[in-house]
Amino acid sequence: MRIDVVTIFPEYLSALDVSLIGKARRDGLLEIHVHDLRDHTVDRHRTVDDTPYGGGAGMVMKPEPWALALESIAEAGRSAGLGRPVLLVPTPSGELFRQSVAQELSAADHLVVACGRYEGIDERLFHWARELFEVRLVSLGDYVLNGGEVAALAMIEAIGRLVPGVVGNPESLVEESHSDGLLEYPVYTKPSSWRGHEVPDVLLSGDHGRVAAWRREQQLERTRRRRPDLLPDPAAD
Amino acid sequence: MRIDVVTIFPEYLSALDVSLIGKARRDGLLEIHVHDLRDHTVDRHRTVDDTPYGGGAGMVMKPEPWALALESIAEAGRSAGLGRPVLLVPTPSGELFRQSVAQELSAADHLVVACGRYEGIDERLFHWARELFEVRLVSLGDYVLNGGEVAALAMIEAIGRLVPGVVGNPESLVEESHSDGLLEYPVYTKPSSWRGHEVPDVLLSGDHGRVAAWRREQQLERTRRRRPDLLPDPAAD
Repeated sequence: MRIDVVTIFPEYLSALDVSLIGKARRDGLLEIHVHDLRDHTVDRHRTVDDTPYGGGAGMVMKPEPWALALESIAEAGRSAGLGRPVLLVPTPSGELFRQSVAQELSAADHLVVACGRYEGIDERLFHWARELFEVRLVSLGDYVLNGGEVAALAMIEAIGRLVPGVVGNPESLVEESHSDGLLEYPVYTKPSSWRGHEVPDVLLSGDHGRVAAWRREQQLERTRRRRPDLLPDPAAD
Repeated sequence: MRIDVVTIFPEYLSALDVSLIGKARRDGLLEIHVHDLRDHTVDRHRTVDDTPYGGGAGMVMKPEPWALALESIAEAGRSAGLGRPVLLVPTPSGELFRQSVAQELSAADHLVVACGRYEGIDERLFHWARELFEVRLVSLGDYVLNGGEVAALAMIEAIGRLVPGVVGNPESLVEESHSDGLLEYPVYTKPSSWRGHEVPDVLLSGDHGRVAAWRREQQLERTRRRRPDLLPDPAAD
């Protein structure tokens, strides 16, 4: 998969060199390019924003530098023989990012992530971009960030780890959170007695059936207490 | 506010030097320390994980290195005269992170973020930690990440920007997303005609009442289409 990220803070994306995603890049499973939006400005001051029409606090990102950046990226993808690119725009105004969205996007050949700042990007860019891209406006969650960069990092991590080969042990992709719609069970490791706290007996029993039943019960109890919204039956909370 | 982050990938947190949070650190509004968990291991191999009791894929983080790291951080906070620290643990098994959680946590004197990896941290750590910390297990959203680091970045950004003085213009804190429970209205800037796409007439009218009414209508329409779950009346979707 090829991933291009456009931002005014390229150094923010340096975390993409680290850990599993960094390794996937070195292994050639993910090809990631980070672009500075300001390289696509045409004025001496490298301006990327201006005041909003209709008034209001804050600044709005001008559409033209974005269009120039996106055109050159789409062209690079075409030259490399990649399929129609997806333009992923992290924004609090988008649909909610969830595991199913990560799954869908992990099937893309070419993912382009546009990191907005200030009050956001001129809305016309998204209409214009539909000619070259499948456009997805996606929110990381119901909280306010300073810009799209950290959302881009999180989304690239969630999407990238679903690309075949990126996670070494495919078993951990199956067992993990959200694949069965419940929170994970609590985990324990050695020593069995630690600073006066004991590992639950059942986990030391060697009885696989009892362990599985206990874990399932823990998942249900936790989900009921912390995330009742995830349970199918509203009477359960 | 003092923030301590414990991780096995300290370099992942370098984004905290950038942009608004980086500036807040340089201005002395946020004091952020990043710690390598492996500095608190006692064996030659600097081991932080082991196999899970009860079986299963993946590894579990051992409690002792965490306890040693957290004790030394709690002690540093006490010496600096800070209040009872909050231990924030990003985990898919936690309550959902949302703006109200960011607001609550922005009132803390001392925030400690524990970035888990693999299948998570031995559960007993959280029980043990209650003596020194207010413990909060919080999920960034319903998707799977490789570890707590990117969630820590996002949460620190969301929390840190609410600390007085970090965002220069307090007006933008008021008007922004989620403060009224609806998605934001679309924004536009110059030029009014761009590549054949026009700014909506009403925004050029200079009629503040019409502009406000149009924006409100856009917020409702967008929320209905993209996030019907945010609307109070379920009949509305």
